[in-house]
Parts: sequence; structure tokens; C-alpha cells
Amino acid sequence: MMRNVLSSGARLTAILALCALVLPALSQAQLVTFSKQELIDYTAQNPFARLPDGRPRVPDELLERARGLSSEEIWEVLEDKGYHNQYADGFQILHPGTTMVGRAFTVQFMPLRSDVNHVAEAKAKDHGIPRLTNQTAIDRLEAGDVLVVDLFGKKVDGTIVGDNLFYYVNVATHGGGLVVDGSVRDLDGISEIAMPAYFRSVDPTPIGNVMLTGINVPIRLGGVTVMPGDLVVGDREGVYFIPPQFVQELLDRADEIHIHDQWTKLKFAQGKYKSSEIYDSPTDPKLQQEYREYLRKRLEEIHRQRTAK
Amino acid sequence: MMRNVLSSGARLTAILALCALVLPALSQAQLVTFSKQELIDYTAQNPFARLPDGRPRVPDELLERARGLSSEEIWEVLEDKGYHNQYADGFQILHPGTTMVGRAFTVQFMPLRSDVNHVAEAKAKDHGIPRLTNQTAIDRLEAGDVLVVDLFGKKVDGTIVGDNLFYYVNVATHGGGLVVDGSVRDLDGISEIAMPAYFRSVDPTPIGNVMLTGINVPIRLGGVTVMPGDLVVGDREGVYFIPPQFVQELLDRADEIHIHDQWTKLKFAQGKYKSSEIYDSPTDPKLQQEYREYLRKRLEEIHRQRTAK
Amino acid sequence: MMRNVLSSGARLTAILALCALVLPALSQAQLVTFSKQELIDYTAQNPFARLPDGRPRVPDELLERARGLSSEEIWEVLEDKGYHNQYADGFQILHPGTTMVGRAFTVQFMPLRSDVNHVAEAKAKDHGIPRLTNQTAIDRLEAGDVLVVDLFGKKVDGTIVGDNLFYYVNVATHGGGLVVDGSVRDLDGISEIAMPAYFRSVDPTPIGNVMLTGINVPIRLGGVTVMPGDLVVGDREGVYFIPPQFVQELLDRADEIHIHDQWTKLKFAQGKYKSSEIYDSPTDPKLQQEYREYLRKRLEEIHRQRTAK
Amino acid sequence: MMRNVLSSGARLTAILALCALVLPALSQAQLVTFSKQELIDYTAQNPFARLPDGRPRVPDELLERARGLSSEEIWEVLEDKGYHNQYADGFQILHPGTTMVGRAFTVQFMPLRSDVNHVAEAKAKDHGIPRLTNQTAIDRLEAGDVLVVDLFGKKVDGTIVGDNLFYYVNVATHGGGLVVDGSVRDLDGISEIAMPAYFRSVDPTPIGNVMLTGINVPIRLGGVTVMPGDLVVGDREGVYFIPPQFVQELLDRADEIHIHDQWTKLKFAQGKYKSSEIYDSPTDPKLQQEYREYLRKRLEEIHRQRTAK
Amino acid sequence: MMRNVLSSGARLTAILALCALVLPALSQAQLVTFSKQELIDYTAQNPFARLPDGRPRVPDELLERARGLSSEEIWEVLEDKGYHNQYADGFQILHPGTTMVGRAFTVQFMPLRSDVNHVAEAKAKDHGIPRLTNQTAIDRLEAGDVLVVDLFGKKVDGTIVGDNLFYYVNVATHGGGLVVDGSVRDLDGISEIAMPAYFRSVDPTPIGNVMLTGINVPIRLGGVTVMPGDLVVGDREGVYFIPPQFVQELLDRADEIHIHDQWTKLKFAQGKYKSSEIYDSPTDPKLQQEYREYLRKRLEEIHRQRTAK
Amino acid sequence: MMRNVLSSGARLTAILALCALVLPALSQAQLVTFSKQELIDYTAQNPFARLPDGRPRVPDELLERARGLSSEEIWEVLEDKGYHNQYADGFQILHPGTTMVGRAFTVQFMPLRSDVNHVAEAKAKDHGIPRLTNQTAIDRLEAGDVLVVDLFGKKVDGTIVGDNLFYYVNVATHGGGLVVDGSVRDLDGISEIAMPAYFRSVDPTPIGNVMLTGINVPIRLGGVTVMPGDLVVGDREGVYFIPPQFVQELLDRADEIHIHDQWTKLKFAQGKYKSSEIYDSPTDPKLQQEYREYLRKRLEEIHRQRTAK
Repeated sequence: MMRNVLSSGARLTAILALCALVLPALSQAQLVTFSKQELIDYTAQNPFARLPDGRPRVPDELLERARGLSSEEIWEVLEDKGYHNQYADGFQILHPGTTMVGRAFTVQFMPLRSDVNHVAEAKAKDHGIPRLTNQTAIDRLEAGDVLVVDLFGKKVDGTIVGDNLFYYVNVATHGGGLVVDGSVRDLDGISEIAMPAYFRSVDPTPIGNVMLTGINVPIRLGGVTVMPGDLVVGDREGVYFIPPQFVQELLDRADEIHIHDQWTKLKFAQGKYKSSEIYDSPTDPKLQQEYREYLRKRLEEIHRQRTAK
Repeated sequence: MMRNVLSSGARLTAILALCALVLPALSQAQLVTFSKQELIDYTAQNPFARLPDGRPRVPDELLERARGLSSEEIWEVLEDKGYHNQYADGFQILHPGTTMVGRAFTVQFMPLRSDVNHVAEAKAKDHGIPRLTNQTAIDRLEAGDVLVVDLFGKKVDGTIVGDNLFYYVNVATHGGGLVVDGSVRDLDGISEIAMPAYFRSVDPTPIGNVMLTGINVPIRLGGVTVMPGDLVVGDREGVYFIPPQFVQELLDRADEIHIHDQWTKLKFAQGKYKSSEIYDSPTDPKLQQEYREYLRKRLEEIHRQRTAK
Repeated sequence: MMRNVLSSGARLTAILALCALVLPALSQAQLVTFSKQELIDYTAQNPFARLPDGRPRVPDELLERARGLSSEEIWEVLEDKGYHNQYADGFQILHPGTTMVGRAFTVQFMPLRSDVNHVAEAKAKDHGIPRLTNQTAIDRLEAGDVLVVDLFGKKVDGTIVGDNLFYYVNVATHGGGLVVDGSVRDLDGISEIAMPAYFRSVDPTPIGNVMLTGINVPIRLGGVTVMPGDLVVGDREGVYFIPPQFVQELLDRADEIHIHDQWTKLKFAQGKYKSSEIYDSPTDPKLQQEYREYLRKRLEEIHRQRTAK
Repeated sequence: MMRNVLSSGARLTAILALCALVLPALSQAQLVTFSKQELIDYTAQNPFARLPDGRPRVPDELLERARGLSSEEIWEVLEDKGYHNQYADGFQILHPGTTMVGRAFTVQFMPLRSDVNHVAEAKAKDHGIPRLTNQTAIDRLEAGDVLVVDLFGKKVDGTIVGDNLFYYVNVATHGGGLVVDGSVRDLDGISEIAMPAYFRSVDPTPIGNVMLTGINVPIRLGGVTVMPGDLVVGDREGVYFIPPQFVQELLDRADEIHIHDQWTKLKFAQGKYKSSEIYDSPTDPKLQQEYREYLRKRLEEIHRQRTAK
Repeated sequence: MMRNVLSSGARLTAILALCALVLPALSQAQLVTFSKQELIDYTAQNPFARLPDGRPRVPDELLERARGLSSEEIWEVLEDKGYHNQYADGFQILHPGTTMVGRAFTVQFMPLRSDVNHVAEAKAKDHGIPRLTNQTAIDRLEAGDVLVVDLFGKKVDGTIVGDNLFYYVNVATHGGGLVVDGSVRDLDGISEIAMPAYFRSVDPTPIGNVMLTGINVPIRLGGVTVMPGDLVVGDREGVYFIPPQFVQELLDRADEIHIHDQWTKLKFAQGKYKSSEIYDSPTDPKLQQEYREYLRKRLEEIHRQRTAK
Repeated sequence: MMRNVLSSGARLTAILALCALVLPALSQAQLVTFSKQELIDYTAQNPFARLPDGRPRVPDELLERARGLSSEEIWEVLEDKGYHNQYADGFQILHPGTTMVGRAFTVQFMPLRSDVNHVAEAKAKDHGIPRLTNQTAIDRLEAGDVLVVDLFGKKVDGTIVGDNLFYYVNVATHGGGLVVDGSVRDLDGISEIAMPAYFRSVDPTPIGNVMLTGINVPIRLGGVTVMPGDLVVGDREGVYFIPPQFVQELLDRADEIHIHDQWTKLKFAQGKYKSSEIYDSPTDPKLQQEYREYLRKRLEEIHRQRTAK
């Protein structure tokens, strides 16, 4: 059943994107304000186009390529760039074998406080938004998004979705994914839906005792400052939030790392070498030469395949 | 191999039930006394028949229907009734995809203390019970039971069963299940047996340094007071202990929730609606009407199917 | 030595208050913007005057009365009002016997991310603020403030102050206090300064690998949404953040609770009564009458003393 | 102020003891029944008299001597007897320098469950007990008791007493003490009262969402099965629950251990010996002889002093 | 692909074994020295031949038989022998259904300290070893080894291997296995390789900030002192380190336990007996006789099969 | 009483030092061998004399000066030198206000394993050492030592000393101190002795189920590689292990930091400056000049005082 949904995804994108335009803008109607202009200012290094809400739009073809990434490949580039805080782990992972890839759609909740929430709800109504709930955010998701939620680790009453809304997120994002520093409900139901998800815990209670304080604002998730539009990549270990300006370089270097690992394992499989003769670079100049050849050829093949598409 | 056992389960029920009658009653021969009359008094709201030992006997057909329940559906009804403490989680789950359903057969252990245990053993002998061990309890299990054990979180020496006794419990309860605030042994062996099980940890030591203090007495398991005869339902998240008086209503409401979720997902799959237009109830009166129709028809179908059996 | 500082505090208030005005406004020069108007909007129920930066100004005489409060007295009133999320605990407490009282001055940090921080620093410079560091915030503290800092539980590199800046905070706030979801340095040095402080841990590293993202914005601290200007009260257990609109009523009810506890203990000390005959209200109508008399007299005395000042 | 209470304690004992007799017996009016006869059966090795409620009554003069005990001395004797499960630690300790000594008065709570509690309350009323609360238990305390409470580690809503009832317990038990696998309220207030107390945590909420299920029944506290009337000894490390039958021997051996430690330290202070020449018994026969002399003399002195009293 | 590697494993053994001889000896070129003679002295009870590096060489056919062992069977024999500290658990297990069996090849790291490491590196160079890294150890692995590493629980920078070196270890040990009190990288890549592995955590960082201090020296892993050459057996629960002198007896007794469990389950499956009539030994003399017969026959069969090979 | 011991310490040093020479050398009679020559090799950068056992001997007058150090001052210098792993925390601290200073005397235990221990004990006997216990190590302590023990975090059976041996260590080291990654016994008794101590936990059991594997060998304690002879400094936060080669520079820089902090606080106390105008260095050139003057004068004073001694 889920399959149908996913295969019909392409058609739905346009429809949903249209719907999204109808919803009123939220940036002034929330406790933590962050205008479209501020978002553009703070993500000024973005080399790509932008979504209507101002978020950087990492292109679809790069999202596709990013499905082959692993945490370690990302780590290397970001470390080189001096970005040491873009990785979060310690999650329960719904589908460990499936890589999660998408553009960060951020949502922030804070503990409920009636006096503050009262004002926020009134401001929201003034902007044509009837309620401030998790669905206020979820209704704005687009194809290619990953829903990234700060629920400050809350378990009881901290369930961002149950199986119904999880199903909706899957449809709306075309299987993008979910990362929540909080919990989910209906794990049995959710497990049957193919979308990747990372959460801290599971609880039968519905979300409550919190207030929605920001949509597509900068949020903190574990030790990471997540910006709206970051490229999100999750594997069996954890989740990386990659600033758009590094995506192209990172993917190119990942091509080389893949080839390097392939070659290394081929050599190891021969059983002729000690590990240090081959890894992480060959000690013998002849092997170095062999590797360089291999790398060049494989890169060419990859580029040929890509341009052939 | 296990399959055979399960398929031959029906035949065994009668035999085992007979055997059970032969065992001497335990209520006065344990540190924590709880007579059959006390059990009846404290479960007076039970609307069903009772087992020979006095426990409420949720009917087999309701056990069967309960296999479709999830924690969230149970949560809703119990919350309405003001029962906030019937859910326990934090377990290792042996077979995450299999729902556990059965009647609570409770067992309590306490830390060994020779002076007390000496008296308990003497009293037990006076009642024709040669020893007070985990097997004293396990030998009294019946078809449809879930073995629920308070071993106060003990890991080392807190293993209620290894694979041999786990196999026995499976045969005796007809695949009912096990919940233990303690540990199990022989995880490799146990994993090959289909019965659901929830435990805190695994350890190679056999049970020891504890004394059996109660069988079918009220026990505490995590934050729950479990009564003998409670309907036990375990899913991927945790375990619910449902007082018998709520079982019928809970199952009926679950029918509606299933239908509601089905309809909601059908609507979401169309990609025409924002989540808040449909969930958790439709905003458009026409959709409301459509849903009510759908609900009515599906409920009729379900009832027709059930009465047809 | 510290004593001198504290006794000369009165004189310094005026000087420091003047200085504060010289510092440029920060609300637009930080990642999380929250203008003075927004602060006023979101704390509209404040019945008191406001500080120049827009924060509610709970009057000094009420701060003084609040020194006699305990967590439990505060809990009761806030619970009645439906505020269940105003208490944080789990801190290391520097001076367990000393009550902390003051107006919340909030500061937020997030994990460092160069692209974002670069923009924030540039914006700050445009507003005449040379750097964005912990001292940018600390320099804005005023007499009567408690410094409340979200450092997301960071231990290593999460030290908001060492003994030098702790000393400064003590001088600037007139011994107000510090609450940090993070760490401090120089515990030996800090222990010699009388100001109350609540922190998660201690570490020898200086603050680093973070960016200052907000001053006097709404922050989350444990399970609490703290608003700038909240009345902060810390005792041996934890810290309460009290919305200004409840301060007067809370203090008045605390007077009654104090008297009630006094009377209760006097009765208990006589050794004539079971606890349930006296607590939490007397069962005997004559004792009830006696208590009402006592309460009335004591309240009169208190009011007389207060107006006499 | 507290001092007065304590010094007037002697007079109050008689009064309170009288009051206690007036309260109706509880053994049949609680979920976990444990009759006076059962208590006597299960503590049959008690060599001392009994309290009116059936608990062993370790004599006052032995309580007095027990104030000099440390955990290690108790450990040695109980280990010899094969009692490995009589020690609990991991508590917050109110007054670390003060040894807690008294007779165990046990109380058990379980998570609230309305159907069960309803029956228990009705049974209690039938026995003349209007309510089942923490005060139902506390009102039955006697001089020399230590209140030992199983609240299954509950923090929120798990506060057995606040400062008012803590004050009452202090008066009623003559400073006996409190051990709770749960929490307390009003830590500021409690800290001013001299009675020793061991608890897991502190919280501002009052006790709630639990039901009283047993008074003076066997309870589990950490890894210990505590019997009513056990000698409770708490020091800076944790709490021992000593079966009455071992008290005399344990105190006598403690005399020898004290003397041994005294002699050992005297020798060490001379700086002439390696530790292994003296401890744990002297290697040199002459020193052995010297020690035996010392031991004999000091034991004689102690006995002389005791009989002189 | 992995399959090929494994199936070609036999051919590679000889090649790799030859290579191993070429590498210079390490025992004097590491911080923790442990000469071949010391290794022989401290494993003097080894009844088998030795590897060239001095480690006991549990024969291949016993390794093969050990694949049928479970933790519980090992526990029983070692407990009898008075070895209570040979089991470690709390690991993440890569392939829960696969038993890990091999000879312990131990490696020890300690926190980096330049002054010490500088000397160690210089000593290593003097012995013809260019660097001291994880690969220095890994290059010395042989067929049938399990790599056992003390990285003192380090997560960040504590990754003993990524997928490339994990692949190498698999080739070099013929699928032996890995146990590390530390972490691994590239979990996605590693998951595709069939070799069993036990680790504490996963992290994207490469190994760093540590120094290699010993190869094939005694190490501590959890609560176990592991000696080079110990038989390592890992199952779904944890890992046993078995001194070679107990291997033969342990395997023989395991044969009996297997037969006993088989018979027990056959009896249980009949549904005629209470568990205590059969387990852990039959109460009825006729059944005892039946069991002894069964045991004798099955043992004969097993021995016939073995000698037939 | 303790006072006497401490004041008579000077006299005892000579006596104890003499005794120490009588004890046989241990380096070959333990599982982890580390000869005097190896110790000298691995601490080759030591600029000071050495103790008879080969350990660097940081001079007494530098130990005395080190009493004024705090963790933060040490952190700064070691960080500059690239030593990031010399700090351990997470201890229970016996006397939080007292700084611990001394030379590291290291001891290592490992989990007991009879086959290994048997050989070690035999080797020890061959070297004239009758037993391998905690006292074997403790008997070798000298004045100025801090006993640093790796008991791998063991609580039960991991108690390095009780009050008797703690007393001995105090006498032998002249109040040097104790750091143990393990536990102690007799906390009540130990609390009365003035020596500083850092331990993980407290337990009533005596040490057991372990074997002594090394005295004055390199050990790991938390994240630190401790070398025999390191300068150990403990404060309210944790413990630093300082390689001897950095001691002089570190103390000199600490003088400047002390003066800097003094001047900073004097300025802050005037209430005329914002924190950033003064700290961490003055922005105003005139203030800079003033500070330089102050620093110069105070350093001169300090040197004058030191040379005057």
C-alpha cells in the first residue's frame, strides 16, 4: 500500500507545493521570530536556488547522490572546514538499513506556559492561523523535506506524530524523513511505513504540555545548530546536518572515497598485503601508481554515467 | 519444531488444565498472603467468569480480538477512565513484531533472607508444597496466561527462565508470553521460540539469592499495580495491564479507531488535503458526513464477520 | 573581602545602572531576535513597572519578601494557576543554605557554526557591539538580576564563568545569582564568593565552541520556558521561575502557609495529637477556631511590621 | 527550637504510646495483609520482647550501643551468618555525620489503581479507619522507630513527608529517623530538624497517585527484604537492616573491632611499622601478645563502665 | 562479494601466516612489556600447542565445536572451577544470530601522552617498527584470531576500525571476530561484512588521541582479565574468555547439556508433565532411567559422527 | 589526634624512608612488569632528582607551592603544551576545601583469575614477597606520595582501604592523599582523618576478587595515563596529573595568574567598569600600564618572600 503512495509521489509534488502557497506566512506569528530576510541573511553562503519560504534548495539530483553517503565521509569534509558540531546521534532508528536524505524543515517546541502561549495564539490568529500545533508545522512540509523537531528530549507528551501523521509526513515529503529530539507514538503502525525516522523514545501519550514556538527557525538538536534548508543525511549511526555551501564538494570527495574503499578492499581480498601496505594509502610507489590509474578510470566512468542520465 | 508445539497446543490445553487442579493451593503458604476470596473482593468489577484460582477470565474470543490492539488505543480508554498507571516500558522485546496477549499470572520474588525463607518453606511443606522456586509458580500456568514477574530489576541471579523453562511456559500458556522486571538466560535458545517476551536484561547466571514470596498476588511492575487476571497486551513499545471491566468497551472503541485511521490514511494518500483538514477529524462538513458513512459501513462489516464466525 | 563588596553594593547600583544605558541595544544583533516590544507583548500580564530593557521589574521589597519562600509554597500557587512547568532541578548548588532571589536576565548559547556566527558578528558590529561573547551579556546585568543561561547542558567548553567573572556578576547584580544549564570553572575560587549559584557541572576548560544567540529572549532551562523578568527563586531543591503576575498573590499566601506551619509544629511539639488531628487542617472544631484566631493575629502582626518599615 | 522538642522527648513517650493503642488495627484493612500472628511467625528467631503490634522490640540500651556501629562492622557479622542482602545505599543523606538507629516501622505504597483502592478504602472504613494515606501510617509511629517506606523510587508525587510531617515523625519517634525509597518535600525546612533521614530525591509536589498498601508488612527496599522490627542502622554510606537475633552478638563483636582499630592506629601513629606488620593482625608474636593484653583490658573497662550505669 | 572472500579463506591462511613471521617482534617495543617467555609462564596450564608468538593454540577442531556453545553452558563450568570473572556484556552486537569463536589476540591502548609516546615510538623504531598504530596490531592477526581491544570505553576518537580495516580483519582472521571496549566507524559498511563484532558504540571520528601500549599482553575488558590465546566465545548476550585448560572439559559437558535440553523439551512438548517433574532432572525414577538411556545413545552417536569425520 | 600525627610527620619521614629500602623490589614480580630502567626511560624529561625506586622526585618546596594551584591554572599550561589528557573528575571528594598535592605512587589491580594470579604469587615469593595484596603496595609509600589506584571503577569488593589503612597511608605519606578509580570503606572513620581523598564510591565490603598486577607502572585513571612520579594536584573539581618537566613553568605562570585575578577583582570591586573593560585584559592603555606595574611589583614581592625563607 505504501508503495503506491511512493510511486504516485511525483504527481503529488506539484499539488502539494500549490497548497503550501495558500497557507499564511508564520514568521511573525510565533514566539521565536525569524523572517524570510533573516533566513536569507544567515544562510548567505547558499550556492543554490531557494524555496518559496526562503530556505536553500539543495537540488534534487544532489539529494539523490547524497543517498550513497556515510557519516564518515561527511565527517571528513566538515572537519576540514572547521565545522565540528554538525552531527547528532543517540537516536532510535526506525529503518536502520535505509539512508535518510532531505532538506531540513525545522520546528521548535518549548514547555507550555499559558501567558506566553496565549499571546502567541492571538498573534497567530491575527495572521490567519487558527491554531499553533504540530499540524500547523506539518501542513507546510514539501517534497524533499526532512522534518527536524526540537522537543527537548521529551518522552511523555513529547510525541511529534503517531502513525496517521507519520503517514501524512511520508506522503507530503515523498518519503523524506523525521528527526525528533523527542518521541513518537504508534510504533507498530509507524514501522509499516517506509519513511526513515530518528527519535529518542516511544510513548503512547499524544503530544501535549508544550507550545509551538518556531517553524523554520534555527534550532538546536543535540549538539548541532540546525539551519532551515540544511542537507540532512542519516545512516545507521546518526544524522548529519550539512550547510548547503559544502554539499557539492562533499559529494565529489565522497566519489573518491568510495573508489578508494573499493580498491582497498579488492587489494585486501587478495590476501597478499598487510593492511598498512595498502591503507590508508599504498606504501609501494607501484601500487600508488596503480591506485591513481584506478581512481582516474572509475571517476571517468561515474561522470560518464551521470552525464548520460 | 516450535511450530508443531504451537499447532498441537489446542489438544494440550485440556490435559494441562487438569494437571493444574492437582497442585495444592498456595495462598496461605507464601510470605505475601492473598486468599482466593481477597482476590475476588479486589477484582469485584470483573464482568466475566473466573478461573479456578479465582482470577477473572477474560474470554478467549476477546483475547483474540485484543491481538489487534496497540498501546495508543488502550491509552485513550484508560486515560478516560482515570487509570494513568497501567503501562510499563523500558523492556527488551524478544519478538518486536508480535503482539502479546493474555491473562496476567503474577509472581513476586524478594531478596533472600534465610530467617524469613525458612519459615515460608516450612509453611509451604505443611501445605504439601515441597519447594518454593520459580518452578512452583511456572507449574501452575494455564493456557492463555502471560507470566508477569516482579524480580525487582535484578540482572545477575535474576533470570526467571532459561530456554528449557521458557519452552515449558510456551507450551503451558499456548504461546501466551512473559513479562519480567528481571532477566532471562539462554537468549540464543529463547530467540528460536515464538512466544513473546519482555525482560530488562539477559545474564548467564541461573536464578538465585531470592525467595518466592507470592503467586497471583497484586504486584508492582515498573509504575503499574498488576492484578492477577488483568488483560496483558504488549506491542513494540511496552506492555499494558488492563482491568477486565474495561476490556469490552476498549475493544469496541478500538474498532472505531482502526476504521478512523484507515479512512484518514486513504484521504492522505490522495494528496489533496492538508493534514489538519482531515485529522484528527475532518473540518469540512461533507467530509465529516463521508467519514460517518464509512465508519457505519465498516462497523457493520466487522460485526457481520464476527457473528459469521 | 567579599563582604565589603556586598556592603558597598547600594552605592554601586546607581553607577552601574547608568553604565548600562551606554551599551548599545542587542535585540536585532543576535540570531534569535526578540525586540523590546515583543518582550512587552509577551509579558503583557506584568502588573509592575519595567526595566529600561523592557523586562518586568518585580519591586525590590517583594524580592526581599521572596527570600522567605520555599519551593513547595510556590508550587501550590502555580499549580492552582495551571502553570506546571516553572520548576527546574538537578543542579549542583553552590551555597545550599542560601535562598536565591532575583529577576531573570536570560542568555542563550547554541553550538558554534561558523557560517551563522559570522553573520551574527557582522550584524553585531553594525550595531556597535564589537564581539558576541559571554561578557557581552554579563556587561548588561543590573542590580537584582539573576543570570539565567541556556548552555544546553554542556560541560567541557560550557563554563559560563570562572571566578573572575563570577565575582563581577556578584558585584553587578548585588549578589543576585546564577543558574546555568551548563558548567562553571574555578570552583575553589567561586566557593569563596557568597552569591548563590546553580550549575550542572564543573570543568577546567574556558567557554568555547558555542555562539551567543540571544540576550533577554525566551529560553528553555530544563523543562521550563523562562521569560526575561521572571522572579527567580532557588532553594536547596531547585529553582522556580515565577511569572510576575503571580508574585503578589504568591507572597500573601506564603505568609499564611508560614503561620500554618508554625502553628502545626507548635501543636505537634505538645505531643498530645496524632498528625491527622492537626494536619493539614485540624479535625476538632475547637482547634479549627484556635487556628483561625492564631492566623488572624499573626497576619496582623506581620502587616503591622511591614507597614512600620 | 528543635532541641526543646528533643529534650522534652522523654515525657512525650508515655503519652504517645497511649495514643497509639487507641488506633484500630490495620492488618486486615490493607491490600497486603500480614496479621500480627504472621509477623510473629516470620520473626520467630527474635530473642527480645515484642511491641504491642507484634514487632520485635530490640531493647533501648542496645539501640543506644548501636549508635557506635559502622556499616563495615555490621557487614562482617551478617556475612558470617550468610545474610548478604541487608544493606541498601544510594540515598541522599540529610545529616551525614549523625548515625541513625531504631526499629523498622515499614510502610508500603503501590501505584494508584482506583478499582483496587476503592475496595481497600471500603475495607478500611469497615475497620474504623477513615482514610488510607501516609498519615494513617505515620500516626502509628512509636518512640525508637525508624520509618521505612517503599515508594518504589518515585520522585514526582512520591514525597512521603514535607517539613510538617517530618517534624511530627521526629517528635513521635524521638528522633528515630526516616528511610524512603522515594522523595521528600521542603528540604530547607527539613534540614533544620535534627532527625536522620535517607531519601532518593527531593521534589516540591505532595504525595499522590499512589495507594497505601501495607503497614508493618515485609517490604523491599533496594536489594533488602526489610521485616518490621529489624534494627535499622544508617551511617554516611547507607543503611543496614539487622534481624533482631543477631543484634547482641553483633554489638559484642563491634566492641572488639573498635578496640582493634584503636590499637592498630596507635601502632601506626608510632611510624615504626609497615602496615602489614600490624594489620589486620600483628605478625610478630610479641605484638600479638601485646594486642591480646590491650584487648582484654579495654573490654574489661567497657564492661565495667556499662554495668556502672 | 563477502562470500568469495570467506570461501577463499582457506587458501589465504598459509600466505598470511607466512607474512606474519616477517613482522618484527613487539614485546620490548611497547609501554607494557610482556615477553614471549612471560606469556608462556603465565599461561603454563595451556594443554595445547602454541602459536609462533607464544599464545596457546586451541586446536581448530575445538574452535569448530565451540560454535555450538552458549553463555550458560560456559558459565556452569567456569563457575565450578572458581572462575567468576570471564564474562563481559553490554556490547552492541553486529550480527546477533552468529556465534563468535576464536583465539584472543589482545591489544591495549591508553590515553595519549606525548612524552611517553615519544619514547615508545623511538623504542619501536629501534626494533624496526616504523609506527605504533592500530594497524601495527592488526597486521599481526592470524586465521582463527579474535581481535580483543581495550580502548577504555572511548567513543569519540575511540574507533578501532572502519569498514576498510574491518574488511581486512575479516580476511586475516577468516571471519574470526572483534571485541572492543570502544567504538567502530562506518556501521553501514561494516554491517555488510559477515564477521561477528562486539563494540560499545559507533562514531564517525577516526581513532586518535590514544597510544598503542601493548599487543598480546594481559588486558582488562569490562570485568575480565583477558590473556592472549584465551578461547573467545560470543553469543547474543555477551562474550566469554575461556582459559585454554578448560576448553576440552567444557565442550564435553556441553554435549551433555545439549542432549539434556533436547530431552527436556521433548518431554515438555508432550504436555503430560509439570516442569518440575522433568527439569532440571526427572523426579520419577523411570524417567531418570529413560533419560540416562537417551543420554548414553546420543553421546555415542555424537562420538561416532566426530570420529567419522 | 590526627594533628599529632601530622605534626610529628617530619620525624617519621626518615624512619619510614629507611624501612622502605628493606622491602624487596617488585618490578619483575608482578604481571605488568616495568623495570626501574624502563621507568627512567619513559620519564626521561624529568628535570629533577629521582626517588630510590626511580620515580621523578618533584622537590618538596615545589610541592608546597603547588598547594595554591587550581585546576584551571594547570589546564592552561598543559593545553599549551599539547597535553589534553591529564585531568580526571567525577570523584567523590572527602575534604572539598583541601588541595591534594603529591607525587604519584601508582597501583594497578585487575579482575582475579586464578591461573594468572597463581603464577604471579609464585614469582613474588621467589623475590621474597610473601603476598600480593593492597598492603604490598601500601607498605612501599613514602612521604610526599599520593596513592593512585586503578581498580577499574569497582564498587563492591573494590575498596582499596578502610579507616585503618587510610590512617596508615596518611602517616606514611604525611597526609599526601589518595585517588582511586574504585571505592573505600569506613567512610565515617575516614572522614575524621584530614588526608585528601578522591574515590568513585563507598562500600562496606573489603577488597576482593581482584589481583594486584602492578606497582609504580603506567596506569590509566579515567581518561589519563598516569606515570609514577607525576605531580598530582586535586581540588574541588578533580585531579590533575602533571608531568614533572612542566612543574616549574606551571608554578611560575600560576604566580602571574594569581596576581592577575587579584587585580581584576580589585577593579571589579570598584564598580566603575564593565567586565570587558578589565577582563581578561584591560582595553584602556592606561589600565594596561597600571596592571603591568602591579604585576611587576607583586612578582617582586613574591620572589623576595620566597628567597627570604
